[in-house]
Formats: sequence, structure tokens, C-alpha cells
Amino acid sequence: MREVSVIGIGQTKVGERWDKSLRELAVESILAAMDDADIERTDALIVGNMLSSRLASQGHLGALLADFAGLRGLEAMTLDAACGSGGAAVRAGYIGVASGLYDLVIVCGVEKMTDQFGCPTTAALALAADGDYEAAQGLSFVAINALLMRRYMYEYDVKHDDFAPFTLNAHRNAVGNPYSMFPRPVTLEEFRQAKKIADPIGLLDSSPIADGSASLVLCPTDMAKSLGRSPLVGIVGSAVATDSLALHDRRELLFFQAAHDSAYEAYRLAGVSPDQIDFFELHDAFTITAALSLEACGFAERGEGVRLAMEGEIRREGRIPICTMGGLKGRGHPVVASGVYQVLEAVEQLRGQAGPNQIGARLGMAQSSGGSGATVFTHILERME
Amino acid sequence: MREVSVIGIGQTKVGERWDKSLRELAVESILAAMDDADIERTDALIVGNMLSSRLASQGHLGALLADFAGLRGLEAMTLDAACGSGGAAVRAGYIGVASGLYDLVIVCGVEKMTDQFGCPTTAALALAADGDYEAAQGLSFVAINALLMRRYMYEYDVKHDDFAPFTLNAHRNAVGNPYSMFPRPVTLEEFRQAKKIADPIGLLDSSPIADGSASLVLCPTDMAKSLGRSPLVGIVGSAVATDSLALHDRRELLFFQAAHDSAYEAYRLAGVSPDQIDFFELHDAFTITAALSLEACGFAERGEGVRLAMEGEIRREGRIPICTMGGLKGRGHPVVASGVYQVLEAVEQLRGQAGPNQIGARLGMAQSSGGSGATVFTHILERME
Repeated sequence: MREVSVIGIGQTKVGERWDKSLRELAVESILAAMDDADIERTDALIVGNMLSSRLASQGHLGALLADFAGLRGLEAMTLDAACGSGGAAVRAGYIGVASGLYDLVIVCGVEKMTDQFGCPTTAALALAADGDYEAAQGLSFVAINALLMRRYMYEYDVKHDDFAPFTLNAHRNAVGNPYSMFPRPVTLEEFRQAKKIADPIGLLDSSPIADGSASLVLCPTDMAKSLGRSPLVGIVGSAVATDSLALHDRRELLFFQAAHDSAYEAYRLAGVSPDQIDFFELHDAFTITAALSLEACGFAERGEGVRLAMEGEIRREGRIPICTMGGLKGRGHPVVASGVYQVLEAVEQLRGQAGPNQIGARLGMAQSSGGSGATVFTHILERME
Repeated sequence: MREVSVIGIGQTKVGERWDKSLRELAVESILAAMDDADIERTDALIVGNMLSSRLASQGHLGALLADFAGLRGLEAMTLDAACGSGGAAVRAGYIGVASGLYDLVIVCGVEKMTDQFGCPTTAALALAADGDYEAAQGLSFVAINALLMRRYMYEYDVKHDDFAPFTLNAHRNAVGNPYSMFPRPVTLEEFRQAKKIADPIGLLDSSPIADGSASLVLCPTDMAKSLGRSPLVGIVGSAVATDSLALHDRRELLFFQAAHDSAYEAYRLAGVSPDQIDFFELHDAFTITAALSLEACGFAERGEGVRLAMEGEIRREGRIPICTMGGLKGRGHPVVASGVYQVLEAVEQLRGQAGPNQIGARLGMAQSSGGSGATVFTHILERME
């Protein structure tokens, strides 16, 4: 297997993008990534998408986007791993380049959630859950996470207020990201006053429905070096693990086993331990998922993820900065695109292009999660001098 | 890249399977394939699925099916290339094994079309087309193919009757396949009398809506040999190409450019020419797509695909037998599963397990098509002595 680097990144501003269609958003980020990589052709386009079949009545995105990006004829595939599909697309691209099959591959995540044709977004998001045993019983995806959060608060004697640092950190970081949906700070008082959407989850515990697209260009590291690309960012660990979709089938409710397994496999492949990771772009779909991700990946003991946040260790100055460009909460969460935005933002940090949010970093980790931790992709990225 | 072989096959009977759910169908074929391969574990599960998000309100099939097949934790991914997703899953499995990433991978195609939750099947199938420029204008997928067929008849002076041999051949072959949906012959008179569903496409030009699942186990050829598996069937060519989704954007309406490009790339990889192919499992979603596939892949000149069928050359005794186990028309077309059934049936032929339908063959080709030839996967399989 060959070493793989990211040589191009492209993104759209996240938000309610009434001005652009699904395909227009995707093409914007694809062309931006090709421009950043300074390439005019590619061997394949790999797309992640979860919702377009439901919300936009459009499947078959691979060929569609290849065509509209001016790449008709190209190998193209589309991956679905629910909210983790962005991570799935990155991994499929990684495999394609590592295997020697492709020299240049574009990975694109795109989601258009504000346009809906006959299907409410909440119903579409429930595709990530077990249809027969959860969704059909009336459990929305927010409700599933509310059950998790309630249990966490009971089990570890944690108050709702204690989750606030996740939201405050995300919004603080979103301010410095020109592509973020909510570039404004949130106060503790605002967090407290936010409407409950599925008690104990309030509006400000929850990442927003959004439109957006992010793309990457991957190529073999040797090729990137011979092209003189610098600073170069390599993918030094790529892993995935799965768990049951339904929470009631899990061995342990409050431990994201698949997040743990995929993170530790990525550590093994990269030859590093959690304390060497300089920042962590995690899947903060809800504040509870941020806490559980920190615990699953070795940054906090069980029940201590919230404490890590309360102690400020997740801030840019902390021990393990998370959501450094705003995360799902502040940058916005165009579901599948988020998994690609995470890797893209890690590349920005490692290249030194994170503007006011820049941290000193050599190793970054991005984790994309489908369902409530049912399919979890972890990528570790390293700046190569 | 390593050489790849198919060492296990498993399938369900195709039909209106009111007795089994989506996940039950998939698990049945997965376990049958593992049993046939005589394995108890695998490195990954790769699933192809197009319609479950629309019809069953269930996405995220990779992790779900891994869990229900007793393989929780496993790497799992799901691919969508519309009706070609079965071929996409085979190709992703092939890449995973060829790259050295996996030693054992299960490829599963599954579709449950008879259960519908609020979305008509015709609307769901339109996901394969261009949503904005075709489906939103009221063009169903059958209507799109009817336009193609009408133009073909006009352009090449062909009558509707002339397409009958495709249907008669498919049904004749379905009789010998215990897994087929319609194991009964069809006469020319029945073909003529069939109701028009989108003129000139009659009911018997069209493959049926169906439930079913097919699975394969892939592994490196060297490993299969060291395990003493015989007769062994290798995948000696795997390729994909894309075209515009919308027919009006094509350079040439009556030529499946992506089918041509993927077939010729597969020929190149396998080091063969079309005349060395002993049989061809093609994508006969409609009689017109069968004719156009034969022309695109070098078995007939333009406008001559129908003539090849009229001359009996597509029958088991003919020059290029097609749909040897019934094809999409006779075996049934559980959309994504069909792409996996095609490869599975090629393996049956090459292993000598095709029962009354057995032909003498060393090289078989399977082609899975998304949309009207917008994403086309071609696999060439060879019996290794």
C-alpha cells in the first residue's frame, strides 16, 4: 500500500444556501479543490451522500457530479454510511490511492438539507437509525441522542449546564472560520435559555441543519513530493469500525465501541498514542456525542469527557483542542459533507492556513460517525516537513 | 495489485418475498455465501443498495447487515450507483482485495421493492435519472427507456416484434434457474399481447420489480489456491465508466458510451477481445437496453443488436449467450442485487453448476448499469484450471 497525501482542498460556505442547488454546491467545492491542487484531471470521483435520495429525489450522485464538474466518463462512486458517509468517502479515496489504482482522486461530500421534496428532514435523518426497531417506533434521531444524554447525566451525575463548554468552544472557533454557518459566539446564558428540542437536548446542544460541500484531492505522497507540494499533509492512519445501529442492542450504552475501535486502529496504523494527537475534529452532532467521542478515543475516562470540556482542555489552548474551525455545531452540519470538512479543516491547521484559529500542530485526527456511533471512520493526518 | 477470485456465492429466490424483510433477505444470502466459501469470518462487508432509503426508510445498511449477519464491528460500507450499485459493490470488493487491504470480503446486493412506506416504486426508481432535468419534468424511468426504444425503432427501422427474442430467451433460461422469479417460458404471442406500460415498452419488454439478495465472497487468488478451492473462478477484469445521467446531454442518444468504455477497459485488463467472451450477463432492464448493451460492447454493429437476437445468437447455443440464468427479465430484477446476481450466475456457469442451463465456458462477462447507461461496471470472470 502506498502512502497517501491530501494535495487539494475546496469548500463552500455552510448555511441555508437557497442560492445554490445540490449539484452546484458540489461542483463549487470540487473545482476549488482541483484549483488548490493545481490539477486539471483526476482518475476518480468519490462522493459521500446520505440524504439526497430522500430530500432531493436524486440518487446516483457519482456520475451526475462527475458530469457537471466537467469530468464526464470518469470512474465515480457514491458511499452511504449515514452521517458518517463523508468519512466513508475519504476512506474509499484513501484505499483507491493507497492500492495503486488511482494516482489522483477527488473526494466530495455534499448535502442540501434546506430543499425538501415531500420528506421532512427529521424523517430523512432517521435513515441512520434502525428503521424497524427505532424509527418505526417514533424515535427521531434527536430523541435517540436525548436518551443517551439523559442516561449519561444520570449515570455520571452531570448537569445540563456542564455540556455548555462544547457549544461555547465550537461557536468561539466558528468566528474565525470564513466558511462557518454561525460565526458568532454563544454565551452560557444563551445555552441555558435555548429551547429544548428533545429534553435534555436543547437547540444549542444540537448541530444545525445546513447545506454545504467540501472536497479533497488525494494522491500518492511520493507523487506529491515530486511535484514539490509543500507544506504536505499525509493521511497516516485510516480505519473504520461498526456497531449495532440500535442503541438497545449495544453491549454498553454509554461507550462508543466503534469510535474506540476505529480510533485505536488508526493510532496503531499511524504508530502514535492519543497523547500525541495535537487536535481532534470530532463528530459533535450533539454535545453528548462530543463527550462520548472524547471518552471512546482515549482522551478522557468514562464519564470524564464533560469534565475535560469544563476544564477548558478542548479549547485551542487546551490539551486536546476539538472542533478548531467550529465543528458540526458552529461551522454547521451538512450531514455527509461534515466528514469531509473535518479532514479539510485538519489540513488547514496542519498547513498553517487556519487564520485566527491556527494552533501549533503536527498530528490531527478527524472522526466521522454514522448513526449514534454505529459506523465510525477515523483519519489521522500529519504535516510532513 | 493482487489477483482476485470468487470463492463463495449465496442467493435468495427472487420474487415477491412477503415472507422476509430487507435485512432477512440480505442475511440469508450472506450466510449462504460464507457457507459456500467455508469461512467463518471476513475482513469487510460491502453492500450495494439503491432503494431502501426511499422504500424502506432504512439507510446505513453496511453496519446494519454486518450486525444482523453476526459480524458486528466489521468494516462495512454501502455503495450507490443507482441500478448499477451491485456492480459498484463488486468493484469495491475487488479493489479492497486487490489492494491487499482485505483478504476476505463479502459483497452483498439486496433490494426489497415490494414493501413500500409512502413512496411509489416508480418514483424511487427515478432516483437513477437526472432529478432536475428528467424526473421533475414527469419522466419516469420506464418513460426514459421508452424514448430510447422509440428512437431506435425509427432510426434502424425495427419493429416491436423484433425485440421479442430477448424476452423469450430470458424466460427460457429462467426455467432452469431454481432462484428465478418467473421460471416459465413466454411465447411470441404473449409478448405481442402484453400491455403497453410506456409505448413502445410492453410489460414483457420490462424486467419485473422484485425482492432478492445475492452475495459473493472474494479473496486473493493465491490464497484460494493454497486453500485448495476448485474449480476456481477469478475476476480478471474490473472497470467502470460514466456518462451524463440525462439522455438529452449525451453526445449520441443510441450508443451506451459508458458501457462501451467500461467493457473495453475490462477487455484490456483481461487481455481479451469480445470474440473470446463465452457468455454475457448483461443489464436487460428493458429489451432495448439489452440490444444497446450488445452494440456498445462489441458484439453487434450499431442497430444490429436486435438482429443478433433474432438470429438466435444470444441463446445458450448461440455465438454470445446472454442472460443464461434468466437475466433481469426472467430471474427478476431486485435492482441492486441484480448486479451481484449477474456475477454469481457467471460463477455458476464457470464452475459448471448451472444445471440444465450449463454452457461450455471459460470466460464470462457481467455488466451492471446505473440509470440508462450512466454508470456502467464490467467484470470479466475466468475459470482457472
